[in-house]
Amino acid sequence: MLIPQPYLLFLGDVTDPLAAKTARGIHIWRPEQCVGEIKLPGCTVSLGLDELDIPGAKARGAKTLVLGTANAGGYLPAHWLETIKSAIKAGMNVASGLHHRLVDEPELVALAQASGVELFDLRHMRPALSVGSGKKRSGKRILTVGTDCSVGKMYTSLALEAAMRARGMKADFRATGQTGILVAGEGIAVDAVIADFIAGAAEALSPANDDDHWDIVEGQGSLFHPSYAGVSMGLMHGAQPHWLVMCHEMGRPHMRHLPHQPMVSLKECVEANLRAAQVTSESVQLAGFAINTSSYSEEEALAYCAEVRAEFGLPATDPVRFGIDEIAALLQERG
Amino acid sequence: MLIPQPYLLFLGDVTDPLAAKTARGIHIWRPEQCVGEIKLPGCTVSLGLDELDIPGAKARGAKTLVLGTANAGGYLPAHWLETIKSAIKAGMNVASGLHHRLVDEPELVALAQASGVELFDLRHMRPALSVGSGKKRSGKRILTVGTDCSVGKMYTSLALEAAMRARGMKADFRATGQTGILVAGEGIAVDAVIADFIAGAAEALSPANDDDHWDIVEGQGSLFHPSYAGVSMGLMHGAQPHWLVMCHEMGRPHMRHLPHQPMVSLKECVEANLRAAQVTSESVQLAGFAINTSSYSEEEALAYCAEVRAEFGLPATDPVRFGIDEIAALLQERG
Repeated sequence: MLIPQPYLLFLGDVTDPLAAKTARGIHIWRPEQCVGEIKLPGCTVSLGLDELDIPGAKARGAKTLVLGTANAGGYLPAHWLETIKSAIKAGMNVASGLHHRLVDEPELVALAQASGVELFDLRHMRPALSVGSGKKRSGKRILTVGTDCSVGKMYTSLALEAAMRARGMKADFRATGQTGILVAGEGIAVDAVIADFIAGAAEALSPANDDDHWDIVEGQGSLFHPSYAGVSMGLMHGAQPHWLVMCHEMGRPHMRHLPHQPMVSLKECVEANLRAAQVTSESVQLAGFAINTSSYSEEEALAYCAEVRAEFGLPATDPVRFGIDEIAALLQERG
Repeated sequence: MLIPQPYLLFLGDVTDPLAAKTARGIHIWRPEQCVGEIKLPGCTVSLGLDELDIPGAKARGAKTLVLGTANAGGYLPAHWLETIKSAIKAGMNVASGLHHRLVDEPELVALAQASGVELFDLRHMRPALSVGSGKKRSGKRILTVGTDCSVGKMYTSLALEAAMRARGMKADFRATGQTGILVAGEGIAVDAVIADFIAGAAEALSPANDDDHWDIVEGQGSLFHPSYAGVSMGLMHGAQPHWLVMCHEMGRPHMRHLPHQPMVSLKECVEANLRAAQVTSESVQLAGFAINTSSYSEEEALAYCAEVRAEFGLPATDPVRFGIDEIAALLQERG
């Protein structure tokens, strides 16, 4: 594991629950790895964890302070530094998903060195990589893909990992974004690698494994998103998936942040993803749909899932509302 | 122009003409920007330019010494340093396409600073970029795409620029690789940008322009190459091309460097590229085929081009052997 767990989750002084998305994601998926939360005056958000100070968190075994909130611009606010420095002095590592790098603060670097701990700038981690080869490798791989960004690919991947493990399958989530990396304790932020190495990063992330082992690779972006499709494409080829799970938000009016960009149909999106995947994985198949129905009533959600299921003859579910065991069952049965 | 021209082309001590590909490309396309060549003892390659020393090149107005050869590993050989230092001392900039960066040599950095010249590490230039938006912009754009890497996309783009200019069209080559950047004097090495910014780089490279102005964007890789398709995809979306020109090598047995990876058919490749382009450019069309026939006789080449022309009803030519005016004519006519 790259980033030592368990974590102390730093919430800063945020007042918008959405800004604590990273901390919330870690807490949902790895509650046993969260010793508590720490806040500054003015913070109105809570994950319901015990509120600790640095010595209290240290006493509970916290190994890394995680800056678990985003602020507009991704800067490191000066008034956060005191907490960060205290954590370092107490022997804790620090992990940050901010654009502004911890290692650009000489004071933090010196302190970390003196304390023998590490600073993890998740958005800037650039492992030494090779370009992708497309060579066949052992083990089974699933990739979550999407009609758009922010449709629940990480949630779906982690839910699938849990459902497959519950069925006794050997399944590992492979993180490609910062929250996922904090959940898993390791991974590669594929949108931050040099463009030539996207596929190589995905290959490194999901290497050859036992024949009955499943890697569930967290997808990014969408082949139909004008900003990020390059990342989605390289990730697809490198992951060399045997199965795809298509993630989608019910009723989304247009591509995220791009009012001029229409959504693609599920059918067109499925076909394009299967075609792209076939370049490195000839027999790739679709395992089903994970649909974010949160803007609709349960009745509407069920009706829409039934419609998708009827159109494609495959499981279609909202993993948050209805679970994802049906897709895990299909994978277990069909292998 | 980012990289000051004219150039003095440094050939080092190479003996393999292929290793001088970059220098040769510059000389073919911008002979008027090459004041001469400079070699070390043992070099057996020549571009047929006057062989100059540093003072001689300076006297002819050389503004930049270009390291125009590749060596295995992309290292900067220690015995090249003397020539580089002499050029800097004489007031010349230095441009390098090596993996090893000039700016990692403190001696060169100090010398360049003292002489008021710049060091250009083409593989490492990372302009400040935004992510792509997919928003429509004015001007006409052509993108060269390919069935594989190294099928002649740069050559085709530059040949098309020349043919369109000869017809009085306002056409500019937009470079996306290091040789292209040296030819144009500017550009963005899209395979070297952070993955999230591939499409944004292509948008920055070919900004809004006059309605009758044509940008010819140099393509990279192939949607079917397992290592680099992410770059090709992002470049496609960002370029927002009205026209594609498909580049292909006649008879290539498998994807470059990947004996396990079969070539795709022209038809499948054309369809996949048009579909991908439609995400940001609904009415994109194919303008024709540029085919590298260099491994075949002229008779075989003509027969193959005729076959492709018959299959698609569009121009199909080897730009080196037969020119590319027919595609330029089609673009001029159909706009």
